Amino acid sequence: QPDGVPERLAAQIRFIVEIDKLKTVLRRSPLVADDRLENDAEHSWHLAMMVPILAEYADDPIDVGHTVELVLLHDLVEVYAGDTFLYDDEARQDQEAREQAAADRLFALLPDDQAVRFRALWDEFEARQTPEARFAKAMDRLQPLLLNFNNRGGTWRTPGVTEADVLRRKAVIGEASAELGAYARTLIHLGADRGWVPRAGAEPDAG
Amino acid sequence: QPDGVPERLAAQIRFIVEIDKLKTVLRRSPLVADDRLENDAEHSWHLAMMVPILAEYADDPIDVGHTVELVLLHDLVEVYAGDTFLYDDEARQDQEAREQAAADRLFALLPDDQAVRFRALWDEFEARQTPEARFAKAMDRLQPLLLNFNNRGGTWRTPGVTEADVLRRKAVIGEASAELGAYARTLIHLGADRGWVPRAGAEPDAG
Ligand SMILES: [Ca+2]
Repeated sequence: QPDGVPERLAAQIRFIVEIDKLKTVLRRSPLVADDRLENDAEHSWHLAMMVPILAEYADDPIDVGHTVELVLLHDLVEVYAGDTFLYDDEARQDQEAREQAAADRLFALLPDDQAVRFRALWDEFEARQTPEARFAKAMDRLQPLLLNFNNRGGTWRTPGVTEADVLRRKAVIGEASAELGAYARTLIHLGADRGWVPRAGAEPDAG
Repeated sequence: QPDGVPERLAAQIRFIVEIDKLKTVLRRSPLVADDRLENDAEHSWHLAMMVPILAEYADDPIDVGHTVELVLLHDLVEVYAGDTFLYDDEARQDQEAREQAAADRLFALLPDDQAVRFRALWDEFEARQTPEARFAKAMDRLQPLLLNFNNRGGTWRTPGVTEADVLRRKAVIGEASAELGAYARTLIHLGADRGWVPRAGAEPDAG
């Protein structure tokens, strides 16, 4: 940092440079447009584009701008905590503690007023008690489903994962939007029809 | 697409899947956090995070949510038109025509009402006549400057580019915010002091 920059601006810039790291946190889902895994920054951008397009399907009316803010920062703590795979039950056990510690550390880089505001948005997303947070979470589950469906199953092909597991993890979509929940179930059933994820009780598909 | 999905939702999903391609459009700036080039989706996410953090420096008051929408979609047309390098004067000559054609093609995937709305946002960003569009453009120029500064010059080291060129291309930052404009000039001067970009008239630095 150059000399003579006011400390408030210097702190804001340090935070902005620090979160560049989100571009290096890889998720499990492959892109549709390329043969590589998606990262958290790309994923967050994609959710933010989906919100205004799909907001009309929210069962409870949502504030679009507020929901966009929630999805833009929902994965920020993974800068320090890393991505936790939806179907990794072991890693999911201490996920909350790891992410709370990461939030404490990351948001402290910002000036106090902005740290409080960002932390409140992140807490709101996690608690999923507002219509905006429920819709944001629905986008977070619908987007990888679209990537997986357009990749002949993608992570649905994880050994041990069945159609019932996918339906259960994706049920939060229907909690925000009956119509998008029905659409998600249609995609999952069609994926199972095509053999991309085994029906409950069946042997995992080797392909 | 599965059968029986309403055409409006099917169109919206097709658009959402199509814009996955933005994650494959590479820019010239290297990441701070990794040794590779940034792509347009990551860049757009980063700008969207910067807006609420830096909005307080806007000389004219801005609507933060509206400005976030502008930056999220400002590069979408590059799905078809590709990225045009800031210091490539030849490519910049037909940039507008290429991008207008891409916008016609891309936004037509959406239902009409949303196509009109997205096109209007993109036109607003390009015209830079509103405080929100000016601030969005300032973020678009400040963010790669931060990446370059934290990469010992980055694209400033392009042969033939001088400190005066960088200052001229970055002047739009000061048109939205005197304080951020001054900060940008401070970074550029410091970069020139360190030999990352030659002063006007000097020989390009070979390093
Ligand atoms: Ca996550």
